[in-house]
Amino acid sequence: MRPAPARVGDAIAAIESPALVIDLDALERNIARMAAFARERGLRLRPHAKTHKSAQIARLQIAAGAVGVCVQKTSEAEALAAQGIADIFISNEVIAEDRLARVAALAQRVRLAIAVDSPLGVDRLARAVQAAGSTIDVFVEVDVGQGRCGVAPAAAGGLARLVASHAGLRLAGLQAYHGGAQHIRASTEREAAIRLAVRGVSAARAAITSLGLACPLVTGAGSGSFPFEAASGVYGELQAGSYVFLDRDYADNEPAAHAPAFEHALFVLARVISRGTAHAVIDAGHKSHAIDSGLPAVWQRELAFANGGDEHGILQTRGGLGGVSAVLPALDETVWLVPGHCDPTVNLHDHYVCVRGGLERGVVEAIWPVDARGCVT
Amino acid sequence: MRPAPARVGDAIAAIESPALVIDLDALERNIARMAAFARERGLRLRPHAKTHKSAQIARLQIAAGAVGVCVQKTSEAEALAAQGIADIFISNEVIAEDRLARVAALAQRVRLAIAVDSPLGVDRLARAVQAAGSTIDVFVEVDVGQGRCGVAPAAAGGLARLVASHAGLRLAGLQAYHGGAQHIRASTEREAAIRLAVRGVSAARAAITSLGLACPLVTGAGSGSFPFEAASGVYGELQAGSYVFLDRDYADNEPAAHAPAFEHALFVLARVISRGTAHAVIDAGHKSHAIDSGLPAVWQRELAFANGGDEHGILQTRGGLGGVSAVLPALDETVWLVPGHCDPTVNLHDHYVCVRGGLERGVVEAIWPVDARGCVT
Repeated sequence: MRPAPARVGDAIAAIESPALVIDLDALERNIARMAAFARERGLRLRPHAKTHKSAQIARLQIAAGAVGVCVQKTSEAEALAAQGIADIFISNEVIAEDRLARVAALAQRVRLAIAVDSPLGVDRLARAVQAAGSTIDVFVEVDVGQGRCGVAPAAAGGLARLVASHAGLRLAGLQAYHGGAQHIRASTEREAAIRLAVRGVSAARAAITSLGLACPLVTGAGSGSFPFEAASGVYGELQAGSYVFLDRDYADNEPAAHAPAFEHALFVLARVISRGTAHAVIDAGHKSHAIDSGLPAVWQRELAFANGGDEHGILQTRGGLGGVSAVLPALDETVWLVPGHCDPTVNLHDHYVCVRGGLERGVVEAIWPVDARGCVT
Repeated sequence: MRPAPARVGDAIAAIESPALVIDLDALERNIARMAAFARERGLRLRPHAKTHKSAQIARLQIAAGAVGVCVQKTSEAEALAAQGIADIFISNEVIAEDRLARVAALAQRVRLAIAVDSPLGVDRLARAVQAAGSTIDVFVEVDVGQGRCGVAPAAAGGLARLVASHAGLRLAGLQAYHGGAQHIRASTEREAAIRLAVRGVSAARAAITSLGLACPLVTGAGSGSFPFEAASGVYGELQAGSYVFLDRDYADNEPAAHAPAFEHALFVLARVISRGTAHAVIDAGHKSHAIDSGLPAVWQRELAFANGGDEHGILQTRGGLGGVSAVLPALDETVWLVPGHCDPTVNLHDHYVCVRGGLERGVVEAIWPVDARGCVT
C-alpha cells in the first residue's frame, strides 16, 4: 500500500495532491439523514459498500442504524469481514466453484447473504455450503427493468423452490435493484420506472408465495430512486450506497419529493502544475477519478474541467473569454473536484484523507484505508 | 495488496476472474519489435512506464535496448526506483515544494530527469536540488499541438536559459509530446499533426541554440505517432509506451507505413455469471477495465460488450437476432477482453497474471506486481 497523502493533524495545505478527501461533517450528516429516512418509515437500511469499500464507513452506517452492508464481490465481503463487519449481503451472482467455496467458508464467520438467478448457481452454492457446513441467506434476483442479472418475475417461484429444497440455503426473499433507473434526471420518470419495477417485484413475490413458500424480504433501491421503493409498500430494505458521498451524477438528478438533502462529501484535491494564458492544467486525470459517468465538476469555482488524459485535467473558465486569466487558478493553487461517479473513483485510491471543519480551514482528523480497493474477484 | 488471482503453474482454467493477464509471448515480441525499430534508426528508446507501472517490464525493455523509462508522477518514479530501475524521466511538471524535495532526494539515488514549463517550476526545482546536493536532467516542455502542458516554441529559449543558469540543473533538451495526435485514425492525418509538431520543435530548438545554449536531445512520441517522429530528423528519443500491450484504441488506428506490427498482449479475463436468452452478463465492469477510450472488445468472439456498470459487462451477439443463443457464452464460461485503454486499466489491478503458451492452452509462468499502481502523487 502507498504512503497516505497526508497525516493526522495536517492542515489542508499540507495534503499532497491528488488525494481522495472526505468532508467528515458532510459524511456524517449524509449518514444520519439516510438512517432517519429509513427509521421513520420502518424500513431496514443495508447501504451498498461498493461505494466506499471501507469498514470504517460501514461501522458508522451500522452505528446509525443500518442492519449491515451490501457488496458486489466475494473479495469485497472478505475484506470487510476481516475488519469486523459481521452482516454482509453479496447482492450479485457468484458462479465459479472455487469462489463459491470461499463464499461458503465466509458464511461460517459472518452472517452472509447472496443473490442467485440460475439453477446452476443454486445447485453449486448448495454443494459449497454443504461441504463447508455453513448456512447462507439466499435472495432470488429478479430483473425489474435493468436487463442485466435476474430472472423474469414469473420464473422467481421455480428458483425459490429450488433454493428452499436445499439444506443450508435459507430463502430470504427477492433482490430487486433497478440500476437503469437511478440516473433518469426527471423525478417523475424515475418514479414511473420504479412503479414498473414494483409491479415486477409483486409478480415475483406472488410467484413465490403461490407455491406456499414465504418471501420474507424484498431488498433493493439506489440513491436515485429509494424514496419510490420506500413508498411502495413492497420493499422492506433499502440498499442505496452513493448517498454517503453524493457524486456529481446523482446531484444532477432532479431530487425526488421526499428525499433527504444529501451533500457532496467526497472530493479529489488537485493542484495546478502548468498554466497557460487561457487554461490551467491540474495533476488529476483518469487515474485519480473515474469518468464513466462524465467528467468531474470543480467545486465552488466557475471553472469547467476538460479531459486531459490519465494524469492531467484541463481547467477553463466558464462563459466566454472576458477576464479569463483573472479567475483561472494560479500555478500551485489547489482546487477540489467533485467526481462524476464516486464508486470507481474510490477504487483508484488506497486512502481516504478525512477532514474535519470544512475544505477551507479544516484539519485532517483521520486517514482511513480503502479496505476493499481492487477487490474485483 | 490483494492475493493474486492465480498461482505460478496454474492452467488458464484455474485463473480467478476478473484478472489482468499478459500473453508473455506477445509481450516479448512487442518489446523486441520496438527495440529493433529504434535501434535500426539510431534512436534512443525510453518507453513510457505509465502504461505498465512494472519494474519487471521496464527491465525487459531495458534489456532489449531501452535507455531507461519515462513516468508521469514522482511516486511512480519512486516505486520503480525502489525496484532497481536506475534511469527515469518524469516527463511532466512538478510544482509543489514538498514533492520537489522528493524529486531532488530521488535524484541522489538514480539518474533522474524532469520536465519544466514555468520559471516558478525551474526556480523551485533548482532550490530543491541545491538543498539536496543532487543534480537532475531538465527538459523544457514545449507545447507541440496538444494544448496541455508546455511553453510556446518561442518561449523555450528563455526557459532554457533559466535552467542553464542554475547549478544542479543540466539542460537536457526538449520534451515534445503530442498526446492529441495519437488516436487520429487516418495515418496521413496523424502524420500531418506530427509534421506541425516537428515544426514547433524546430522553432523551440532554434530559440534555445540562438542563445548559444546546446539542445542535446528532443524526446517525445507515442505509440500512435512514433514512426513520424522517428523519421523527422529532429527527435532523438522515443517515449512510446502502449505498444507493449497494444490496447483496442491503438489497434483501431490505421497503422503508419513503417510501424512494426504490434499484438494485443494485455487482456482481462472475465466470466459469465448470469445468462439471459439474448445476453450474457460477465463479472467485469468499470472496476476491472477503464472505459475512457471506449468499451473493451471481446477477443476472437463475435460478441459486443455493452456497459453493465462497475462490476458487470453485458455481452450480446453481433449482427442480428438469428442464432443468438447458439453463440452467446454459457454460464461460467470465460471470455477475454481487450481493454479500450491499457494504462488506466492496469492501474486498477495489483497483479499481472503472466501466461506462456497462448490464452487457450497456456500456463501461468509468473505473477508480477503492478509496482506503481495507484501512484498518482
